[in-house]
Amino acid sequence: MTAALLDALRAALDGHGALVTDPAATTGYAHDMMPLAPYGRPLAVVLPASAEQVQACVRACAAAGVPIVPRGAGTGLTGAANAVDGCVVLATTRMNRILELDPDNRLAVVEPGVVNQDLKTAAAAHGLYYPPDPSSLDTCTLGGNLATNAGGLCCGKYGVTGDYVLGLEAVLADGSLLRTGRRTVKGVAGYDLTRLLVGSEGTLGIITRATLALRPLPAVPGTVVAAFDSVAQAGASVNRIVRAGLVPSLMEIMDATSLRASSAYLGTELVGEGDQALLLCQSDAPGAAREAELDHMERVFRQAGAVYTHATQDAAEGALLLRARRVSLAALEARGACMTEDVAVPRTRIAELIEGCTRIGTDAGLTVAVVGHAGDGNMHPTVLYDGADTGQYARARTAFDAILALALSLGGTITGEHGVGKLKQDWLERELGPVALRVHQGLKDALDPAGLFNPGAVLARRPTGTRRAT
Amino acid sequence: MTAALLDALRAALDGHGALVTDPAATTGYAHDMMPLAPYGRPLAVVLPASAEQVQACVRACAAAGVPIVPRGAGTGLTGAANAVDGCVVLATTRMNRILELDPDNRLAVVEPGVVNQDLKTAAAAHGLYYPPDPSSLDTCTLGGNLATNAGGLCCGKYGVTGDYVLGLEAVLADGSLLRTGRRTVKGVAGYDLTRLLVGSEGTLGIITRATLALRPLPAVPGTVVAAFDSVAQAGASVNRIVRAGLVPSLMEIMDATSLRASSAYLGTELVGEGDQALLLCQSDAPGAAREAELDHMERVFRQAGAVYTHATQDAAEGALLLRARRVSLAALEARGACMTEDVAVPRTRIAELIEGCTRIGTDAGLTVAVVGHAGDGNMHPTVLYDGADTGQYARARTAFDAILALALSLGGTITGEHGVGKLKQDWLERELGPVALRVHQGLKDALDPAGLFNPGAVLARRPTGTRRAT
Repeated sequence: MTAALLDALRAALDGHGALVTDPAATTGYAHDMMPLAPYGRPLAVVLPASAEQVQACVRACAAAGVPIVPRGAGTGLTGAANAVDGCVVLATTRMNRILELDPDNRLAVVEPGVVNQDLKTAAAAHGLYYPPDPSSLDTCTLGGNLATNAGGLCCGKYGVTGDYVLGLEAVLADGSLLRTGRRTVKGVAGYDLTRLLVGSEGTLGIITRATLALRPLPAVPGTVVAAFDSVAQAGASVNRIVRAGLVPSLMEIMDATSLRASSAYLGTELVGEGDQALLLCQSDAPGAAREAELDHMERVFRQAGAVYTHATQDAAEGALLLRARRVSLAALEARGACMTEDVAVPRTRIAELIEGCTRIGTDAGLTVAVVGHAGDGNMHPTVLYDGADTGQYARARTAFDAILALALSLGGTITGEHGVGKLKQDWLERELGPVALRVHQGLKDALDPAGLFNPGAVLARRPTGTRRAT
Repeated sequence: MTAALLDALRAALDGHGALVTDPAATTGYAHDMMPLAPYGRPLAVVLPASAEQVQACVRACAAAGVPIVPRGAGTGLTGAANAVDGCVVLATTRMNRILELDPDNRLAVVEPGVVNQDLKTAAAAHGLYYPPDPSSLDTCTLGGNLATNAGGLCCGKYGVTGDYVLGLEAVLADGSLLRTGRRTVKGVAGYDLTRLLVGSEGTLGIITRATLALRPLPAVPGTVVAAFDSVAQAGASVNRIVRAGLVPSLMEIMDATSLRASSAYLGTELVGEGDQALLLCQSDAPGAAREAELDHMERVFRQAGAVYTHATQDAAEGALLLRARRVSLAALEARGACMTEDVAVPRTRIAELIEGCTRIGTDAGLTVAVVGHAGDGNMHPTVLYDGADTGQYARARTAFDAILALALSLGGTITGEHGVGKLKQDWLERELGPVALRVHQGLKDALDPAGLFNPGAVLARRPTGTRRAT
């Protein structure tokens, strides 16, 4: 049976190491970057080079009743790409061509294995901009970005991956090739299958091509930083920015723990003694409007009681200031094991979330550091613990769950941009309720009745016997 | 049977004329504003006042096996809200409360019967902006806008209805209440059920509440007009605007026939003798950037060979110029019967589409006038014919279909913003292909297995016997 499947996969692919079965090699494809999510041993890893090869692999697996776990670069943070025992992992990394870049229609057509930054670079050569910018943009692939509807630092002004998807091509569980969407700016022909696939974490189809909208490249941003001696004041400042009608191209928040970790990591004194929070804002408005926006932001921060503000139009200085934020997770990881959350709350509740996280940390006898995208309310509290101490691990898990509960109680969501994956399936019903969960299962059954694609992601895995027959 | 259903509906509602059965009155709810789409005679019209009443009506109809056609203000242009014989029309117009307007989180929570302009007005009082602006914005309801994913003139810069929907509440075919989405700016918990409902034309659920994102109110726009002595030059100007990295807040195109009709209708001389096309652009950029953008646009038009350009920052003058575009359909209707199309093409193909429409008109011995949203490629060619002449009607239908075929051949879509409705179901498969159509039917079956909701919209109506049992 297994031998027959491997033969079929070998025939489906084009040789050149496209079928990997050596456990020493397949292990590298068994999980993403979230240590908390479970993963199994794949039977094999396939690296198809075309949609036709993906179709042939899917048909072979469907015939053998062997599940397929699709995967990009494996930079996810929810285990969405984690293998289940005996599955075939399908990595799209070899399908990495930018097939078209059309400046007159401001769009690109790409294969799923294109690295995010590579599209940005190719677009910039035409004066164009592909905004979505997850932290892993130097290595993550657009296929993974699409599967998770990835965000980044740009979202408050520019939206998320899904906002840039005009159309998709995807292989369905029966091996057929689905085309969704369009090449035009607008289009409402039929149900929005494009958006149904985006963020579905490979559970409904395997994306093999995407038509993505681009924007004109904005101006090089100017930067403002503001330090506060309380989280509440920093939170109130976010409200004032919103109330002032400002839309920063970036607005990040860091709490005291994160600030001190980044300071130590970079070996610089980022903050003053009593600073409890830092806001970091940018404006990429055109021409004179940029300086006016930066001035306005700085004024708002001062009025909100900032103990320190600094504005610069110098790009290098802006990048340096942003570095404290960009290194924050690495800086925290240098201190010990980390569980990084991805909750989002209404922008008015940011201070309550951060203060609640600090309290949750204290209750657990652990530290919770918070950084986040203040412009859109998407916060990344990180529970710090000693990985060698099982008691601490258990308390960290409890704190992790308490943060999810806190976010929901503040009118928020369990995931702002990382997804549900194989980590938060149990929380999905708590957020969405039983009716929405039933609809999810109905859609999954409609598109993948045998549960072939990425079992256990988004929705809890059901015993084989309870799956609906095709 | 019928009497029992009417009793159940009466019990479900709150009196006060909420159940209408008089055929003289129900006729007014039997169709929207598209004369080409078929419609039947409703058994009754219900006007529920709450989600609970919608649920009770749906349950009563489901028990009786009587289809429900949801409807807003009936301003649609595809027959999507048209009754089928013996159905219950459910109008959401009484559910017209703005439940919440939250300036700190830039969002509104509304019932589906709120008129589009009423939300705009309420938002503007807080310095906020709800962009989607279908032409019928003074009368159309947000529920209808959501069901059709309506667009308007703002889309090239600000997107369509779906881009502003954070979450929905909808009644499903089994009477249960589904909640989708979130109140946060970002969120990726589960499948995007929000976007699946948006644009589904009432075939998957009845929207009873929506959480909508708002933006800061932009500056009062400045306006540039440019006249060209060929459609090709106007089309090339659109490309040059895109290439120059400009994003006008509005960019409309009118061909010679539309221009002359609007001129006659308004009793003013809008254009010169030889003018073949007019472009009308606006910029709402902040501060000095606005004048710079308007100057840039005017320069681009001159370089592209415009025979006349004029720019103004005066809002009243801008509104006057825009009036020629806004009255265009009324001006054409004053000349005779009209079939208005809603195709969209890549922005680079606008000139080809307009020239092709003129040719199609000539071949049919009729006139085709074209106005459209040049900023996003969504064109509204209108076939003019004599409604009393059956030969002309038949030729007009042939021309209407030829325009759809032309749009597809140019890489476009059969509908940019009006929807499929009960008019273009046969064209949906030609655009999407059999795999996508099969997926559509699978999703419909998953959510509405008995085909209760809006039968015949989006997907062709199947004989009752072929519907899947619940």
